[in-house]
Amino acid sequence: MGDSTVGGLRPCSGELDLADQVSRLVEQSKELQESASSLISRTSREEDSLRQRANSLNSTLQNLLSTVRKSNLDSNRSEKVIFIHSTVLSFYFHTFPGIYMCYLFAYYLLFLQLEEELFRARYILSEGDAAAFLPSKSHGRFLRMFLGPINVRASRKDVQLKVKEEYNSFRDRTAYLFLLFPLLLLVSRSCIWNGCLPALPVQLYQAWLLYLYTGLALRENILRVNGSDIRPWWIYHHYFAMAMALISLTWEIEREPDCAQKQKGVLLFLRWAIMQGIAMLLQNRYQRQRLYTRIALGKAGRMDVVWGETAGVEGQLWLLCPILFILQGFEAYVGLLLLKTALVGVTSEWQVITCGILLIIMAVGNFANTVQTLVSKSRVKAKMKKGKSKQELDRQGSSKCQ
Amino acid sequence: MGDSTVGGLRPCSGELDLADQVSRLVEQSKELQESASSLISRTSREEDSLRQRANSLNSTLQNLLSTVRKSNLDSNRSEKVIFIHSTVLSFYFHTFPGIYMCYLFAYYLLFLQLEEELFRARYILSEGDAAAFLPSKSHGRFLRMFLGPINVRASRKDVQLKVKEEYNSFRDRTAYLFLLFPLLLLVSRSCIWNGCLPALPVQLYQAWLLYLYTGLALRENILRVNGSDIRPWWIYHHYFAMAMALISLTWEIEREPDCAQKQKGVLLFLRWAIMQGIAMLLQNRYQRQRLYTRIALGKAGRMDVVWGETAGVEGQLWLLCPILFILQGFEAYVGLLLLKTALVGVTSEWQVITCGILLIIMAVGNFANTVQTLVSKSRVKAKMKKGKSKQELDRQGSSKCQ
Repeated sequence: MGDSTVGGLRPCSGELDLADQVSRLVEQSKELQESASSLISRTSREEDSLRQRANSLNSTLQNLLSTVRKSNLDSNRSEKVIFIHSTVLSFYFHTFPGIYMCYLFAYYLLFLQLEEELFRARYILSEGDAAAFLPSKSHGRFLRMFLGPINVRASRKDVQLKVKEEYNSFRDRTAYLFLLFPLLLLVSRSCIWNGCLPALPVQLYQAWLLYLYTGLALRENILRVNGSDIRPWWIYHHYFAMAMALISLTWEIEREPDCAQKQKGVLLFLRWAIMQGIAMLLQNRYQRQRLYTRIALGKAGRMDVVWGETAGVEGQLWLLCPILFILQGFEAYVGLLLLKTALVGVTSEWQVITCGILLIIMAVGNFANTVQTLVSKSRVKAKMKKGKSKQELDRQGSSKCQ
Repeated sequence: MGDSTVGGLRPCSGELDLADQVSRLVEQSKELQESASSLISRTSREEDSLRQRANSLNSTLQNLLSTVRKSNLDSNRSEKVIFIHSTVLSFYFHTFPGIYMCYLFAYYLLFLQLEEELFRARYILSEGDAAAFLPSKSHGRFLRMFLGPINVRASRKDVQLKVKEEYNSFRDRTAYLFLLFPLLLLVSRSCIWNGCLPALPVQLYQAWLLYLYTGLALRENILRVNGSDIRPWWIYHHYFAMAMALISLTWEIEREPDCAQKQKGVLLFLRWAIMQGIAMLLQNRYQRQRLYTRIALGKAGRMDVVWGETAGVEGQLWLLCPILFILQGFEAYVGLLLLKTALVGVTSEWQVITCGILLIIMAVGNFANTVQTLVSKSRVKAKMKKGKSKQELDRQGSSKCQ
């Protein structure tokens, strides 16, 4: 700038520098654009090929797993095999019964090993970086309704786990509020409001419930897209809960003449919410523990959500199960009571009837799902016991065979 | 399988095949896992480097653009340059006034060209594949509240455009419903319901409004993350509208004794909604046209949303502007009317006051933003005119210089 070379009509060196910089910038932008598009197209090609490989491996895995399981679970399997190869085996069977036993054990052992190997393969596929290339579940109507066609699948496992962690901490935070809000309302009702709840605080609580259930439904749908195996019922449950929160907002809470009669349903609901809050806290705590145990055992994907209400750690299950069943019973009771008040005619608003029906549907659905989870859990346990006794036999058998 | 080689105690060939398949699968899974993690780490490294380059280019671009603009817009610029280089220039100025003019034109031309070049560079950076590597806006509290920490930024431009397209069609679809719902309510009120609206249909409409505004706010936040330069006010506007829809749900609509008095506010709101629906349809149509024109001219990013209410095509602006100002006036009028009914004491519910205040805030905000957009538009136009006349002069000047 100092030793300006202005000669004639050309702009001074400062402006020339500027022009140089600008043209260099344009060049660099073009270069960046080219590298960006080449990276994107290259990556997309490689991702496609990985996706195909992951896809075919996954279907092979499913096929093999079902084949092995069929063979392993079928208790008559060994006899069938013996029947098929009877020409060869009958010789051993009749002449060397001990050797026949060894043959059977070899089969058992083989299938158990194969199943374990397949579990390992599944773990590698679903828990590592390859998981990003497995076919994902569709986004579903709910997400499309609120977010449009944006992709909410994280391409990296660590991001997926961050989402899962945040979901857990969201549930923790909200469980405290879920407990605190109705408690505060009930306490204030008897201490400040002389037994008659004003509309605004209850409506604030209902609006918060609407936000909570919408947030949970959105997050759970996102988790599902990211490979979590959350039971569909718990997402539907949150849709019903959203509908109920929305409907309860339109419900007139205060009406002076018969406040006590009118607020009976609200009070029952608040008491139920306190119980639900306690159950949620217990569940969150023990489900997380259990999930970590399952992850450590390699049995559950780290993205699995076990909102399923029976998923406490073993010892806590006997504490949680009664609480959950009592809750569900109480939920259905509140629902029936609302229907009764509507039919008797104290309040014949459609909201009362609809909320009653929704509560009963949710109670029945929750009950059915809890029982299903318990049944599948006891089946798995029985299978594991069977497997253990088999292994025991294997050890004995193989010691005999040696 | 046919020529079974069973010899002794080994399982038959079918089972051996199965074992082979399983071990091959485990091997392939490991290989896939390795290729996946190597692809992901390689891509992430390359993306990081591209992101750094894009970042530095972007900041250089901003600096250069502001330098060039300052130089170009400053009408005294040429005189200042002349003053600085007066020792050299005074000679030309006094002896060859024509040559001095050429010197000035050379400056103008240079800056105009530089600005154009920079626009080109910005277009390359923001509209091509490189855009994915530009620093993105933060997700914001609203998205985190509903979705958690999931990333909603699309990495490819074509996906971003799909999101934008879907947003536009969502707005189109909802504009028809926005018009249809209140129209149906008003018609049914006089034809079926004898001048007194029942609560349920109005509440359904309000619940739909709540969903609509939540969906719009979520989508607009997602667009913002994806690089759209939507004005923040229009997102805030949807937050206010969400709040109003939620509050209006808790508002008792029907009360038999003074139905006509009580429903005055609702009726005004419905009429306003019809006007708003018509305005939305007009806006959507002409904004999209205008956006396409701007994209074709390379002036707007394809992710830009021009919800800004003044963004019709030139001819339509004179139709839209009065409609928008009338709408805003009517919105404020409805708000004031609600406040008046609350203060006079016909209905002293807090909902009436809050809705009134929200309507007035929205009307004032909309008005301020529309005026701002108009002002900046006229400034751009004035600048363009100036640029045009400069270019005119340039042509004349350069023809003189030749």
